[in-house]
Amino acid sequence: MDSAELLDLLGNANRRRILRLLAHKPCYVTEISEYLGVSPKAVIDHLGKLDDAGLVESRTDDRRRKYFSIARNLRLEVQVSPHEFGAKSAYPANPGFDVSSCRYVSIEVDGADGDSTDGDGTDGATSVDDAGDDAGEDVDADTEALKRHARELERLKQLENELSLAQRWVQGSLSEVRENIDEAVEDGTDDGRLYAAVIGALATGDRDVRTISRDVEAHPEFVEEALEWLASEGIVEQSGETWRLCD
Amino acid sequence: MDSAELLDLLGNANRRRILRLLAHKPCYVTEISEYLGVSPKAVIDHLGKLDDAGLVESRTDDRRRKYFSIARNLRLEVQVSPHEFGAKSAYPANPGFDVSSCRYVSIEVDGADGDSTDGDGTDGATSVDDAGDDAGEDVDADTEALKRHARELERLKQLENELSLAQRWVQGSLSEVRENIDEAVEDGTDDGRLYAAVIGALATGDRDVRTISRDVEAHPEFVEEALEWLASEGIVEQSGETWRLCD
Repeated sequence: MDSAELLDLLGNANRRRILRLLAHKPCYVTEISEYLGVSPKAVIDHLGKLDDAGLVESRTDDRRRKYFSIARNLRLEVQVSPHEFGAKSAYPANPGFDVSSCRYVSIEVDGADGDSTDGDGTDGATSVDDAGDDAGEDVDADTEALKRHARELERLKQLENELSLAQRWVQGSLSEVRENIDEAVEDGTDDGRLYAAVIGALATGDRDVRTISRDVEAHPEFVEEALEWLASEGIVEQSGETWRLCD
Repeated sequence: MDSAELLDLLGNANRRRILRLLAHKPCYVTEISEYLGVSPKAVIDHLGKLDDAGLVESRTDDRRRKYFSIARNLRLEVQVSPHEFGAKSAYPANPGFDVSSCRYVSIEVDGADGDSTDGDGTDGATSVDDAGDDAGEDVDADTEALKRHARELERLKQLENELSLAQRWVQGSLSEVRENIDEAVEDGTDDGRLYAAVIGALATGDRDVRTISRDVEAHPEFVEEALEWLASEGIVEQSGETWRLCD
């Protein structure tokens, strides 16, 4: 699902309330209608839109009544700043994702507190997927498992907050760097922005003019001009059709 | 600005297109109207809403024509999952934010590549705010400053991608842990969710019943029941009015 579709769906307060309700428990149309104080017809209409997008799904109970729940796990990030408006949606990364492959970020979810009593080799980043396997019939084992899950939930929630704070810091820093580029270019107020955008487009990989032009939503002619000026300054270099930032 | 207001504004495709355009350059109403193929009246209406919310601002040029630009720097994060629907908006963190105060995340934005030629003591996380100061009149100094900004932009963009990937991983892991808690509680299908939500509410700090009840949007009576069961299992404990996760 692309971010535009998701933003269209989430732009309605009642649809947001329906999703919040369904996140707490699966519901029948009548429950949603009563909770929201909205007619069943309107609820069905909202659910239809959410269903079409694959955000909710329905099952039928033994009395053949339909009940609804959230079907997807997804994430939307929107950044608004004087230099950037960007929205992206993504599915959560696979639990097997190897955080250690990151170059600038490292994450320590396990062993951070010394009183952890995990005895079964749970191993931070890659352990979550097998954490539920030992919920056996033994009550004590159940309780131990529950305790471990609670601690894991606690660590993940704190990690989530820290990552969010780090993202906010990055966004603020990006704004400053873009303003600095604006100033350093000093080539008319409008162009500085384009130059910062072009550098930004090359920041995550080498690109040809057409791709950059699409990324920064500027005419290829202007992009080419910017690239040539940046090349004359030794900021970027060309290799065949591809442009890259100089080392 | 709260996330609901922001989602209402961003739920309109033409308002998103206006913001995308203004992120590239400040614009007059006529420019926006031509670019979007939308009547000036409709554009003025959208700009009015964005202006009321403080998202855009206008200045007057020397021919007394108004032009618009994005006024705010803010960030919106939305999570949709079978157990959670959450939206939060926030301003970017102050550039002086000390990443090293994080417990689970560490960030290495400087010194990651050995060929950095920074000679003015720029110092990673806390250096961005003074990075533009030495853009003097000397052309070489300007070029050096621009190169440094370009490298900084590159690192920040990569860091942003890594953080985003890490957040997606956290969201996926949280979903799994919540499902594991559901299973471990095994106390009727609906209640597991509430128990996971209650543990989640305590994960980021100690709370009283009323606050938890508001956080998880459940009746205080049910929250109290859940807390007492979790206490009997040794997962949470009470101190006065306040509940906390056991160590």
